[in-house]
Amino acid sequence: MDIKSISMDCTRPEFVGTAVLDTIGLVIPGVDDALLNQMDVGTRYRSLGVFSSRTGAAGQLTAIDEAVKATNTEVLSIELPRDTKGWGGHGNYVVLGGQDVSDVRQAISTALELTNKYAGELYISEAGHLEFAFSANAGHVLEKAFNAVYGQAFGFLCGSPAAIGLVMADTAVKSADVDIISYMTPNKGTSHSNEVILALSGSASSVKEAVLSARQIGLELLISMGSYPNIPGKPYL
Amino acid sequence: MDIKSISMDCTRPEFVGTAVLDTIGLVIPGVDDALLNQMDVGTRYRSLGVFSSRTGAAGQLTAIDEAVKATNTEVLSIELPRDTKGWGGHGNYVVLGGQDVSDVRQAISTALELTNKYAGELYISEAGHLEFAFSANAGHVLEKAFNAVYGQAFGFLCGSPAAIGLVMADTAVKSADVDIISYMTPNKGTSHSNEVILALSGSASSVKEAVLSARQIGLELLISMGSYPNIPGKPYL
Amino acid sequence: MDIKSISMDCTRPEFVGTAVLDTIGLVIPGVDDALLNQMDVGTRYRSLGVFSSRTGAAGQLTAIDEAVKATNTEVLSIELPRDTKGWGGHGNYVVLGGQDVSDVRQAISTALELTNKYAGELYISEAGHLEFAFSANAGHVLEKAFNAVYGQAFGFLCGSPAAIGLVMADTAVKSADVDIISYMTPNKGTSHSNEVILALSGSASSVKEAVLSARQIGLELLISMGSYPNIPGKPYL
Repeated sequence: MDIKSISMDCTRPEFVGTAVLDTIGLVIPGVDDALLNQMDVGTRYRSLGVFSSRTGAAGQLTAIDEAVKATNTEVLSIELPRDTKGWGGHGNYVVLGGQDVSDVRQAISTALELTNKYAGELYISEAGHLEFAFSANAGHVLEKAFNAVYGQAFGFLCGSPAAIGLVMADTAVKSADVDIISYMTPNKGTSHSNEVILALSGSASSVKEAVLSARQIGLELLISMGSYPNIPGKPYL
Repeated sequence: MDIKSISMDCTRPEFVGTAVLDTIGLVIPGVDDALLNQMDVGTRYRSLGVFSSRTGAAGQLTAIDEAVKATNTEVLSIELPRDTKGWGGHGNYVVLGGQDVSDVRQAISTALELTNKYAGELYISEAGHLEFAFSANAGHVLEKAFNAVYGQAFGFLCGSPAAIGLVMADTAVKSADVDIISYMTPNKGTSHSNEVILALSGSASSVKEAVLSARQIGLELLISMGSYPNIPGKPYL
Repeated sequence: MDIKSISMDCTRPEFVGTAVLDTIGLVIPGVDDALLNQMDVGTRYRSLGVFSSRTGAAGQLTAIDEAVKATNTEVLSIELPRDTKGWGGHGNYVVLGGQDVSDVRQAISTALELTNKYAGELYISEAGHLEFAFSANAGHVLEKAFNAVYGQAFGFLCGSPAAIGLVMADTAVKSADVDIISYMTPNKGTSHSNEVILALSGSASSVKEAVLSARQIGLELLISMGSYPNIPGKPYL
């Protein structure tokens, strides 16, 4: 088998594109019935968009949230595998549905583009990682993933090793008037990741302030462990 | 402690051998009763064969399936830890039982040998991995692991990141007349791996065609993510 | 953002220190009520100590056990994420409570110091790892984590890939008069780690003998897989 004869420029109709953090976006124009029945996402949609990354969840989910809002698509499933390629967090696997393959293709394409922006608040060092996300106006994807309040501001913070995440969480909720909408630990709600995760709602300015306070202390604690993080994207908060 | 004084040529009676993908095969001639009670595999067998790899499941399980068919042994347990040494899949941990330690030793020895063949359809790149397996005649190990139909052809396909696996699955079931016997995702049936996994039954030629179609599109999609996979074994399909 | 402007000498009051195996120790002097309610550890303590590592569990838990015994603190939660930075085991995440922040700070500080000693029995090679722990006099932390008998000797052994752990377990229970208090495998009690884990009680000399027998055969089997382990700490058994 000569795999080098396969081009990196994929010409399959299922292929939409790729993005940072080992992300791929694909479509299935008309999914096989027997497979759809296995997928447990109902049978309303035959045109599926499929999105998946090895590293990161909240940034990509914020991107997909925007993409779904901007297109005539619906989120069908969100799963967070234990991944980050040896680090302590999650990857992601999301399935969207639409009446038309052009709708799901547009949603996936937009999601890939926005991933390059929204996955910017990721800090990965030798010792651990931090992840942040913010949306001024959460849609159904963030609602489904993290109990975001539809139409309200949404904030997300995550630290690894998990102890860093807990102190970040405490700092966040003390720094501004916010509500806790999700709280996740290795044994609770994660895929056994080495993280404490907090999702918040409130006014946009309060939520943003909470996330920024968490980011500051998170960075100081992560760096105390002896190495500076790489920032694979471009911070946007 | 001078660990360098320990030889890589293990002389313990429990040691049978090693194989690719960080695989080890061992026997316990007469397992301790208290331990056997903990193991929840019944008390019929005191001679146990134990097999375990850091990377891969379906290829090794196909090898063990053949080995059990060829010996007077029975599969007692199959567990798939979240592993692949930082990649998105599983390792394996299998316990066999036999009336005689020579039976289980033979089974483990054969399984190790066949692993070097059946773990050949594994493709691992910077971005993710693909795994495939095929048996013309599934035995009790594949039945227990993946709901294979005893005596029928069995096919297995798996892609990571998970979105690749879903498109591979759809391609497979459309390419030939096959039945889905197992469907697994990060949240369903895996150990939170970043994979979609499909197992198939049908005629040998249909199952093989389905797996080969999945392999072709899987390679194209994996390679689209920017790197060519290493192939630690030797492809045999 | 200029993260290089953040010093590795953390001056935050929450910071206590770091230790080997990517371990951090922190305190929260007065945890936020809403966060405490999410944590499901009761509301008796507002001063929390938080401890977390990327690699290892039993060694650090033995250290924390001693630290809690020596201070006026109580263990509130113990969680073992799937981690070891791409290897087959667990990290850890522990929350302690105390009436006073000085109590929890002392406990965390002691735990970090003792981690550098008690995490010494860790052996990590290319192929897998081994972990051991021993306490002559188990306290509430080991009781909570592994069903240790309070006030009795406690032994812990763990091997990866999992098959090595099972043979280590059998060797251990045959080598001395000990009782099994915990038995864990990929599917049972772990976070899908590629390990078999055994915890033991009995007389101090029996438990120690069992652990040392397991260590000897564990090293021989691990080394048979083709590489010598690194020993990040200093063996103490």
